[in-house]
Amino acid sequence: MRDVSIIGIGQTEVAEHWDRSLRHLAGDAVLAAIEDAGIEPTAIDALYVGNMLSGLLTGQEHLGALIADFVGLRGIEAVKVEAACGSGAAALRLGYGAVAGGLHDFVVVAGVEKMTDTVNAETTTGLVMAADADYESIHGLTFVSINALLMRRYMYEYGIEHEAFGHFSVNAHHNAVGNPNAMYRRPVTVEQFSRARMIADPINLLDSSGIGDGAAAVVLCPSTMAGEYQNGGVVCIKASAMATDAVAVHDRPDPLWLSAVEASAFKAYQQAGVGPRDIDLFEVHDAFTIMSTLSLEASGFAERGKGVWLAQAGEITREGRIPICTMGGLKARGHPVGATGIYQVAEVVQQLRGEAGANQIANARLGMAQNIGGSGATVITHILEAWD
Amino acid sequence: MRDVSIIGIGQTEVAEHWDRSLRHLAGDAVLAAIEDAGIEPTAIDALYVGNMLSGLLTGQEHLGALIADFVGLRGIEAVKVEAACGSGAAALRLGYGAVAGGLHDFVVVAGVEKMTDTVNAETTTGLVMAADADYESIHGLTFVSINALLMRRYMYEYGIEHEAFGHFSVNAHHNAVGNPNAMYRRPVTVEQFSRARMIADPINLLDSSGIGDGAAAVVLCPSTMAGEYQNGGVVCIKASAMATDAVAVHDRPDPLWLSAVEASAFKAYQQAGVGPRDIDLFEVHDAFTIMSTLSLEASGFAERGKGVWLAQAGEITREGRIPICTMGGLKARGHPVGATGIYQVAEVVQQLRGEAGANQIANARLGMAQNIGGSGATVITHILEAWD
Repeated sequence: MRDVSIIGIGQTEVAEHWDRSLRHLAGDAVLAAIEDAGIEPTAIDALYVGNMLSGLLTGQEHLGALIADFVGLRGIEAVKVEAACGSGAAALRLGYGAVAGGLHDFVVVAGVEKMTDTVNAETTTGLVMAADADYESIHGLTFVSINALLMRRYMYEYGIEHEAFGHFSVNAHHNAVGNPNAMYRRPVTVEQFSRARMIADPINLLDSSGIGDGAAAVVLCPSTMAGEYQNGGVVCIKASAMATDAVAVHDRPDPLWLSAVEASAFKAYQQAGVGPRDIDLFEVHDAFTIMSTLSLEASGFAERGKGVWLAQAGEITREGRIPICTMGGLKARGHPVGATGIYQVAEVVQQLRGEAGANQIANARLGMAQNIGGSGATVITHILEAWD
Repeated sequence: MRDVSIIGIGQTEVAEHWDRSLRHLAGDAVLAAIEDAGIEPTAIDALYVGNMLSGLLTGQEHLGALIADFVGLRGIEAVKVEAACGSGAAALRLGYGAVAGGLHDFVVVAGVEKMTDTVNAETTTGLVMAADADYESIHGLTFVSINALLMRRYMYEYGIEHEAFGHFSVNAHHNAVGNPNAMYRRPVTVEQFSRARMIADPINLLDSSGIGDGAAAVVLCPSTMAGEYQNGGVVCIKASAMATDAVAVHDRPDPLWLSAVEASAFKAYQQAGVGPRDIDLFEVHDAFTIMSTLSLEASGFAERGKGVWLAQAGEITREGRIPICTMGGLKARGHPVGATGIYQVAEVVQQLRGEAGANQIANARLGMAQNIGGSGATVITHILEAWD
């Protein structure tokens, strides 16, 4: 297997892009990534597109061929990859495998989602397709309410008040201020968090990431070929690992332990030859504050029941022990679901290149991005390292 | 890159399975394939699921984790791959790449589709998502009517009467009689074809493949490891090739020439070191009779404008020069869209193992399966060879 590097990144602003269709968003990100890499488009072998909801919400499947053609790559191998909200990083995982294994040399991986201006159904109907249709959503559960059950259980088991989760939201919004691609570029306080309106008790508006339209893309190639493409700087993929779990939360022996997060993170640590202490920043899948908490615990950054204290102690800020959501996270950058996994990776690349502007983590060498499908049923972890 | 073999296959009957959900269908096929291979389930590294419509039609995405868990493989790497009606073979293409490149040793690739008993929208709304939503379906075109435009143009350009296409339908139905998994196990005549009721002029009911519920699966491993799993016989994947084209038919310079079929087939021939003359049977993507015609031409089995004559001359029958749709094809086995590509490959495996029963092609050594997404926008060609 060959080492794989990221030689280009592209992102659109996450927003309500009423004037941009899915192909325009994806096109903007893909073309920006190709330009950033400084690569000839004719060198590109394949396009993998991460997307969850294009069928239900926009009446369009077949995004591989559609986007390949739109960006001027008609004819190349192209597919869509879906793993609920983990679709972006799942596509990257397959792209990584194709380059590492020698199937392709140059692969573009894009994530795209258009969640406003929908056809066929509303976004809430779309998002719950990440859960078990026959055993969860059929009872009227939404995706938020499944997470609300987890949060309620966590608060009960560990005797934690809702306000304690507020620091995740404060951190994410604080970091989004410096990210021109973020949807919510304004700070919030713990007081505002506590007063935010209820969505699905105990999850309130500021526990929840915002949906939006957006696309992000990366260009991959074997590390041995990456030296020629130092246009924007090169970052090496040290580890790529995916694991799954039961989709329905009630099927898991312990609903407060995300086994697939643990399996995916520790496979990644092993592949990279590192541990949680070596990670300089961690793009957490903070779809809800409870998911941040559980992810930090299962990834080895906090003991069971203690994840929320990392946030309260300030350890997740840019100056803390393990900065998370350094560009705003899902919470404040926004969560265009199938694109999120690629945004996370593109943001880690920005940090490792030293191009994160006001949000730069000092001396960042090793960054981790973790993308989750459903409430922990598909988890993909990537560890990236800066080139000298 | 390692050589890759298929060591097990599984198929459910294509039918209206009102009593079986998507996970049950997929589970049946996956477990049958694992049993056929004689492999320990714990050896399996990953599951790739080809599916197009589960979100819109069943309210369920996230099939990778869902099906992995259901078949007792909780925890393994699992994703869904989508490329419209080419989803099945697109998943196989990625599974092939993962094994060939060394990312995984044992991969199960399943295709599944549940098209009856729908939620959110009707099947016609689902199928047109293979076309261009912004430029084709927005004008009211259905997927059948796009193919009807192609067929009308073909008849006009080459001065061909509708009845000439009937032999494709006759051949498919004749072959389905001997396939216990086929949906329409009854012969039809050219006279019945000519009298069939109109769907979208000039496409009538017997020009069209039937939708249905179904699932198929294959187990892959490196050929060097395949010798241990001769339970059901082993077949080698000699070539795997994917190509794309513009999704919207009006964007193609010549709507009657399927460029992606040509590119995919000829890449596959090159990889396998063979030509059309060496192929003993060809599972064609006969979603409509016009697609069979155009595919035979672009794959090098007939000159431009002459594909339909191959059928009329009897060359596509089991005794002909290039037997196609040997187990009934999409037309009569049925076309559960995301599963079709895997059915095609499983049927080629049956032929190469000598297990096709009454439908056996004598001395079949080299078989080709070609799965198409949209009206030619994504094409995946696999060439399989019998082991001695």
